[in-house]
Amino acid sequence: MAYKAKIHITLKEGVLDPQGKAISNVLGSLGFDGISEMRQGKYIEFSLDEKDHLSAKNKADAICKKLLANTVIENYHIKIEE
Amino acid sequence: MAYKAKIHITLKEGVLDPQGKAISNVLGSLGFDGISEMRQGKYIEFSLDEKDHLSAKNKADAICKKLLANTVIENYHIKIEE
Repeated sequence: MAYKAKIHITLKEGVLDPQGKAISNVLGSLGFDGISEMRQGKYIEFSLDEKDHLSAKNKADAICKKLLANTVIENYHIKIEE
Repeated sequence: MAYKAKIHITLKEGVLDPQGKAISNVLGSLGFDGISEMRQGKYIEFSLDEKDHLSAKNKADAICKKLLANTVIENYHIKIEE
């Protein structure tokens, strides 16, 4: 069965986010104020063919651990949809 | 009032996604099969101080159009939370 995995990868709290900081700075100079806690992460979507929801989730989890996320500094969150 | 904006930026359909393609290729060589339609996008979170939900949404929309998304090749989706 075909499932769709939607994965968010974000930096752990306390890890410096230079991209987010850069965006914040530019927004300030563009005149957007009142913006704070800017964080940039990754969003990855893919389809996978598995027999059930649980095995789709397990496979997505293995893929995150092995390739997509650097678990030392990043958190990931997986959502599986049919 | 403080709102949290959660923004997904994804490539429009039909736009080539070389990062997604690279991930797919590596997954294949790592032995993960049955994976398709891999797409990589961006996920951006920030806090903003606005008087109500609508003005928070409008401000986030202006920020996406002006800075975060390249609307020629990317779609963006904004979610505002309190």
